[in-house]
Amino acid sequence: MRIEAAFGTVLAEKRKGAKLSQEALAHECGLDRTYISLLERGLRQPSLKSIFSISSVLGISPSKLIELVEKRMTKNIGNDP
Amino acid sequence: MRIEAAFGTVLAEKRKGAKLSQEALAHECGLDRTYISLLERGLRQPSLKSIFSISSVLGISPSKLIELVEKRMTKNIGNDP
Repeated sequence: MRIEAAFGTVLAEKRKGAKLSQEALAHECGLDRTYISLLERGLRQPSLKSIFSISSVLGISPSKLIELVEKRMTKNIGNDP
Repeated sequence: MRIEAAFGTVLAEKRKGAKLSQEALAHECGLDRTYISLLERGLRQPSLKSIFSISSVLGISPSKLIELVEKRMTKNIGNDP
């Protein structure tokens, strides 16, 4: 699984787990809803600052968020389209 | 300490620890030396992909690299110019 796709999957899961809409998350992060949508679909990759602001709103550390992305990538080895 | 500055400091430390020049690191990562230089000076922020490629060459996990950035930021609270 590509890095951006893995990040997008983790982001969508965590956002839903936090009961936040894309719009609410974007607002809390000071980002655009469209950007969140692009990230979740793996069509954009987050900058370092976005990683920090998003994880802060999701209530996890940036390193934990990245760790989840690493795990997601490993889990999907062999399933990459 | 700003996020980019903290990342730059950690990157420079880890690169020197690995006995790599900016040029050698850039080459290994498939990135430009100028980009590495800008990152180390906190003038650019890395993308998610750059975080993964740089940490791979430095022999640490991306989440560990981000954890070091978090620690660096906390350590410097109150010293932010």
